[in-house]
This record gives sequence, structure tokens and C-alpha cells, in this order.
Amino acid sequence: MNQQTSDLKIFEQYFADHEKEIFDDYSTFLQFKSISTDKAYQDEVHSCADWLIKHIEDIGFETELWDTSGHPTIFAQNLNAGPDKPTLLIYNHYDVQPVDPLELWKTPPFEPTMVDGNVYARGAQDNKGQCMYVFQALKAMMHEHDSFPINIKWIIEGEEECGSEGLAGILENKKEPLAADYLVIADVGIAAVDKPSVTLGIRGIITMDVEVIGSNTDLHSGTHGGRAYNPLHALAEVVSKLRDCDGQVTVPGFYDDVDEFTDEERGQVDFAFDPDEYRDTFALEATGGELRYAPLERSTVRPTLEVNGLSGGYSGVGFKTVIPAVAQAKISCRLVPRQDPKNVGEKVARYIESLSPEGVTVKVDLHEGGGGALRASPDSDIIKAFAEGYSVVFGKPCGFTYEGGSIPIVTELARTCGGDVVLMGMALDSDQIHAPNEHFGWDRFQKGFLVFTQTLSILGKG
Amino acid sequence: MNQQTSDLKIFEQYFADHEKEIFDDYSTFLQFKSISTDKAYQDEVHSCADWLIKHIEDIGFETELWDTSGHPTIFAQNLNAGPDKPTLLIYNHYDVQPVDPLELWKTPPFEPTMVDGNVYARGAQDNKGQCMYVFQALKAMMHEHDSFPINIKWIIEGEEECGSEGLAGILENKKEPLAADYLVIADVGIAAVDKPSVTLGIRGIITMDVEVIGSNTDLHSGTHGGRAYNPLHALAEVVSKLRDCDGQVTVPGFYDDVDEFTDEERGQVDFAFDPDEYRDTFALEATGGELRYAPLERSTVRPTLEVNGLSGGYSGVGFKTVIPAVAQAKISCRLVPRQDPKNVGEKVARYIESLSPEGVTVKVDLHEGGGGALRASPDSDIIKAFAEGYSVVFGKPCGFTYEGGSIPIVTELARTCGGDVVLMGMALDSDQIHAPNEHFGWDRFQKGFLVFTQTLSILGKG
Repeated sequence: MNQQTSDLKIFEQYFADHEKEIFDDYSTFLQFKSISTDKAYQDEVHSCADWLIKHIEDIGFETELWDTSGHPTIFAQNLNAGPDKPTLLIYNHYDVQPVDPLELWKTPPFEPTMVDGNVYARGAQDNKGQCMYVFQALKAMMHEHDSFPINIKWIIEGEEECGSEGLAGILENKKEPLAADYLVIADVGIAAVDKPSVTLGIRGIITMDVEVIGSNTDLHSGTHGGRAYNPLHALAEVVSKLRDCDGQVTVPGFYDDVDEFTDEERGQVDFAFDPDEYRDTFALEATGGELRYAPLERSTVRPTLEVNGLSGGYSGVGFKTVIPAVAQAKISCRLVPRQDPKNVGEKVARYIESLSPEGVTVKVDLHEGGGGALRASPDSDIIKAFAEGYSVVFGKPCGFTYEGGSIPIVTELARTCGGDVVLMGMALDSDQIHAPNEHFGWDRFQKGFLVFTQTLSILGKG
Repeated sequence: MNQQTSDLKIFEQYFADHEKEIFDDYSTFLQFKSISTDKAYQDEVHSCADWLIKHIEDIGFETELWDTSGHPTIFAQNLNAGPDKPTLLIYNHYDVQPVDPLELWKTPPFEPTMVDGNVYARGAQDNKGQCMYVFQALKAMMHEHDSFPINIKWIIEGEEECGSEGLAGILENKKEPLAADYLVIADVGIAAVDKPSVTLGIRGIITMDVEVIGSNTDLHSGTHGGRAYNPLHALAEVVSKLRDCDGQVTVPGFYDDVDEFTDEERGQVDFAFDPDEYRDTFALEATGGELRYAPLERSTVRPTLEVNGLSGGYSGVGFKTVIPAVAQAKISCRLVPRQDPKNVGEKVARYIESLSPEGVTVKVDLHEGGGGALRASPDSDIIKAFAEGYSVVFGKPCGFTYEGGSIPIVTELARTCGGDVVLMGMALDSDQIHAPNEHFGWDRFQKGFLVFTQTLSILGKG
């Protein structure tokens, strides 16, 4: 039995011995309604941070709760491995998305429920599940060895789901505590349940609100229909002009800073897409986006523009013959390296405003808190260590993938940290994050735990 | 002093003497939350009907409360004028529209408030205000003369704002009680505050729900953006194709049964439109609808297609990067004579469904309860009598107008009644019916009262 197999056995045994305790911690963590985007949940967000920081202290970390303009950031460190050992900065977040539409949840979103080996709850995967297996891995290592094989810093923020403005605002003053050799963003996934992979990149994001203003009041559609320009029609017309029939975004200059993927880059990853599986899981064909690229390229390494909400007029029970004064849309763009969030946002905003039909006013409010895309090299030591960790745990070679989602703060955090970056996690597309019935496989929770213990041991041997 | 001037003086005096009592009745009537479209208000709708029928009994009517599949219809009659006198059937409704968006109301919608001579409340005009001046006119006539100059039947329904399905379902069995020489629909307006007019026509209506279905679940727009066809984009694209750049509806066959207005018809009415007044009142230019017609023609005697609601995805505080499973629209079409609601609705529904992009499903649910348009001849006795009534009260000649709104039940009611129809009322475009801050001028309430007493006297003299 070699060292790696021996480590694996130790922590498999630990997980088996402590499974109930691990699950109970996880369950408690999930019960906090730490919805960061809605001020109504502010107290729950703070209680969640307090609970978590206490638990992190208990496993041998010095901790600090950093105040921000929004929700606090947890910072923890244990540098007892000493200056000869590398320092790893781990990133997680303890906040979650809103839960609406609530009526579509089969179990209450803040009452974690295990069904067929999956834990259902808001945050079950994104990111409380992934944060919790990191915690349990560190706890287990401390339990087994009374120390960590490397120096560890850990930052857990409370505003990832609403743009990380607070953390972004303090990074400049936290260069020293956040300095590290490596940064691991434990908030992404694997290619498939039986396909271990390390993630080489995530997309950037910029979001905005669009408002179409007609009259100074809601109007009766009988009296004014045919005279007033209906803001709902204007909004539909504007949105319909943002992409062409091939799925290309029509905003002038949108693709200016977009590099085509090279054959070498394409050769490093597996862009194979199984339409049958997609149909079985989501009842969908992959008909969206830029049709001249492969589905997985479109959703991971190409930029997008998506409407995330339309509203205006009456949408309740029955009918109301109204021409509303205002119609609204929420729009986000996913970005690739070299696309500057603010610059792309401005281009989109100006173009949308230029599409305003006569008789209504179209206004775009560009949100703060966007973030650029991030790409890592498959040749860096930290990527190699995690790839090896995955290989040992899964018993098969580890591949590379790209992630279509964004973690807005990550580019700035990487710059502040100064170390090489890796994106890892145990997510699957089918986890329904940000949607009703979010869930996370308990088997993947355990594998995430093992990947972490394994990789930290590998890094310790350096 | 001629007879007409003498009648006017009597009822002006009556109104002055009973103003507080009249206002109190009106205010009580407005406090019932008789929102017919929302089942949550069912009890309030019924309480409102009970209150009203009691008051109608007290002024000398035999009454019946007709059960329907939905909210009850009030029927009242006083035929004491005898067979030598004509019979007039009056139509009103006691139900009101929903009040949302509630936050835009400056005074609570069910606490009637007088500000600068206007009464603010949901239903202040549509139709409780107009129903109440009819009631007060009848009460005053009974008070002054102990009888009515003609036979009167009165039908007051509780589902006008949600399609009148209940009343439509019982009309066939109510031919005898509803038979009359004339039918007056007291639910429309005048051309301007100083321009008395009788209404020669209203538009028909058909309404529908549109649903665009993508995945079987909400999706994360980072993971699926660029792969999944976003139902919000699909909905915007579908809606944007329903009208061309000149405002014409693009649905094949939509205009098949639409007759162009003749020069004779155009000569009977005043289609003058004041863009400055429209801008001052509604902060709007008349840029909507079929641009090759005059604004008032477009909004009264031409058919329209308007979206009355768009919804889907996230529209709350903050942001949610979601591709929703479903996006929805509510659509209504206003119709002109010879356009059959069901036939036009089917054409619109099939066309909308045909526009579905690949990868989503578009379904249209056509609502029951649409109604055809109605047109009256300016040469009928009842039109002439009301025109004379308006002239006396306003002290100037009465014109003719068309109304862009719809009263779905009216066409069928007219057929059941068998008499000549007139549409009258004291509404102005600026009353904000169906919108926040609906209001009705107290001076117009009084004028409506006087037009009614005056016209009934005229009809009594035959």
C-alpha cells in the first residue's frame, strides 16, 4: 500500500466513523436562510457567519470577521506548518440564492432532506455543501494528525450571490493576510459523476436592470390601446433585437475582445456533449446560444447575453386590461478573458437605449460588482496536485473542464492573493443550483472531502 | 321657464339638499373590495351585492339576486308606469378591477378620499361612480314624484371586470325579464369635460394567456447560458413579431372582417385629438397602434392587439442569474363589428404558437368570456333622448363618440333585451380606471345624475 492509498483509507474510515456528526453539521449550516441579495434576511446571514466562524475556531484556526459595506467575510488561518511549507488560500461562500418560486420546491428549501442519496436544500451544493466538505476535511486532518501538512488560509464570503461588492471593497487593504502560494476556489464542479476534472476557467459577469417607461400612469388598454406605445411591446422588441437568428449577440463591439479558442486549448478539454442526457435531465435540446460553436463551448468559453427576468403589467390570477406605465428586464452577460465587465456593460447599455421606440424611454442601470473571467494553466503545480487528488479518489485519470458560471470576486481575489489558481468542486449540472429543488449527492460530498484531504497531503509532500 | 329647464332646477336643488347623504352612500359603496377577478375577494363581492340590492329595494323596486356560475347579478324592476310607457333596461356593474401596484396609490384604494373635487378610490368611476349616480337619480325621481315616468328594469352584474361569464351563462333563461324597448349601458364617457357626447360604439375583446416552456426546471444562466434556449428571449421574440413597424397586427387574417370606417361615419363624430393635452395628462405621444390612422380612430374604431402582462424569471430586489423554466404573457385584442372574438382569438393563438423557436414550446390558452363589438345608430329614439338630456344639462349641443374599451357582455345583453342600445356615462380618459389613483369628478357625478333624471323625463313624455 503506497502513501496515497494509505491516506485515502484513513480518511475513508474517518468519514464512515463520523458520518452522522458530519451530516448534522451540514444540516445545521443549511438551515440558516443566508440569502444575501435580499435585505430582509440580513440577520440570518449574520447568524450563519457567526455559527460557521465558531466551528472553524474549534478546529485550530485563528479567525477574523471582516466588516464590509455589506455582509461580513470570514477569514481564518493556521500557519503552523511553517515557512518551509507552501501556503494555500481557500475560497468559499456561505450565502445562498433566493428560493422563489417557492411553490415548486418538493421539500422546504431550509429544511435539508435526504432523498435517494441526495440532500435537498437551498445551498445544498452552492456553496454550503462544498464549503462544508472543506471544513470536514480540515477537521479530519486536524483530528488524525494534530496539524496540517501545509499553511492554510481560508476566506468565506457572504455576498457571492449578489456580486461580492463588500469583499471587493476591502481586498486592497487585505493584501498581506490574503497573500499565498496557491488559491483554490472550491465552488465549481466535475465533468460528470464518473468523470473527475479540474476546472481551468470560469466566465466573468456583468448584470443590469432595463426599464422601459411609457406614461406617467398605468393605462386602460381599451381606451389607450392603439394610441399609447405599450412599454411591454417596446421591451419585447428591444430584447428580440439583442441576438440574431444564429444566436450571436448583436451589440456592436460585444465580441471585440473575445479570443477564439485555439486548437491546443480545445485539445486539453473534453467538449463532448450528450444530447440524450441533456434531454433526459432538463427536457431540453441545446438550441440556445451561438449555433456555430459546440454546445459545451457555447456555455463555457464563449460570452453570452441572457435575460434573467421580464416583468410588467398584470401577471396574477385572471386578467387585467392594462398598459403598464413601466416594463422591466434584468439582463446578464457572461464574459471571457480580456472582456472588461464595465466596458462590455456600457456597450450593451448604450445599444439597448438606442433601440428605444419613439414614445417610450429606455433606461439601463448597470450594476456594480461584475467580475472578469479567470483562466488557469494546466501546467501549474496546484492544478497538478488537485488533478492527482481527484485521480486517487476516483481511481481514474482526471481531466480538465471550463465552467460557464461566474464567481465575480475571483479575478480580483486571485490578483490580491498573487498565487496560482485552481478551481475545484464536486458540482454537477443537474444539481439545480439557483433553482427549486437544489440538491447535492451525499457520495459527492464524501468524494469532495477525500479530494481535499488527499490533495493537501500531496501539497505537504511538495 | 320650459318644462326641461324646470326639471333641471328641481333636481339641481334636490342634489344640493341631499349632497352629504348622496356622498355617504357613494363612499360606503366604494369601501367594498368587490374585486371580481380574484377569488380571495369573493365574500366582499357578495357583501357589496347585498348592500346594493337592499338600497334599490328601498326606493321602490322589486329585486332579485340571480345566481350565476360566478358572482351574482342584481335584477330590479319597477313597471308601474304601465304598458303605455316604454321600458328602459339599465346596465351597470358593481365589481371592480384589482388594485396592484398598490404602492403607487396616493390614498388607500378602498378608503374614498375627496381631493380637489375628485373622489379617489378603486371603482370611483368604473363603474361604482356611474352606478351610484343612476341610483341617486332614480331615488330623487321617486322622492320628487312618487313614481317613474317610464318602466324601468335594471341589471347590475358582478363580473364585468373578469369577462361576465356568469351573466352570459344565464341570459338565455332571462329573455322575458330582460326584454325592453331600450337598453342603456351606463359605463362609458364623454368626449371631454366640456364636450357632452353619447357613445355610438364600443370595441369587443378576446383575452388569452401565453406560456413559453423551456426546461422542466429553472436553470442557472452561467451553466446553461449559451446552450438552453431562454424562454424569456423566446417570449420577447414571439411578442415582437405580432406587430409590424407601422403598428399593424401581423396575425394572418386578423383584419379579414374589419370594415374601413366610411366618410359618413367619420363625419358623425369628432376625431380631433389634442397632442398637447395627451402629453400633459399622460406624458405620452400617440406613437402606438396603426400609424396610418388618426390617434382616436386607432383607439376606438380599429382593432388592436396589446400585451397586458409579461412575467418570468426574477424580478425582485437584487439579481438572480436564472433561465426560468417558463415565461408568460397575457394578451388581449380589441375588436370591431363583424370580428368574431373566438375566431380572431383562434387566429392569434395559432399564429403565436407557430412562432415558437426550436427548443421551447409555446402554448396559448384562449379565455372564455370575450365579447363582440357594439354599434348604435345616431338616429334611434334612445340615442336622441340621451343626446337631448346631455344638451340640457351641459347647456350646449351633444356630440357622438366611440369608446375604445369593451363591455364583453353588452352585445349578448343587447340581443337578449331586443331594444335599441345607447352607451352613456361621464367618464374621462384621465380618470385612471384600472390603474392606481382611479378617480371621478364630483361635478361629473352630479352631471351624470342630472342627465339621467332629465333623459328619463324626456322618455316619459315620449
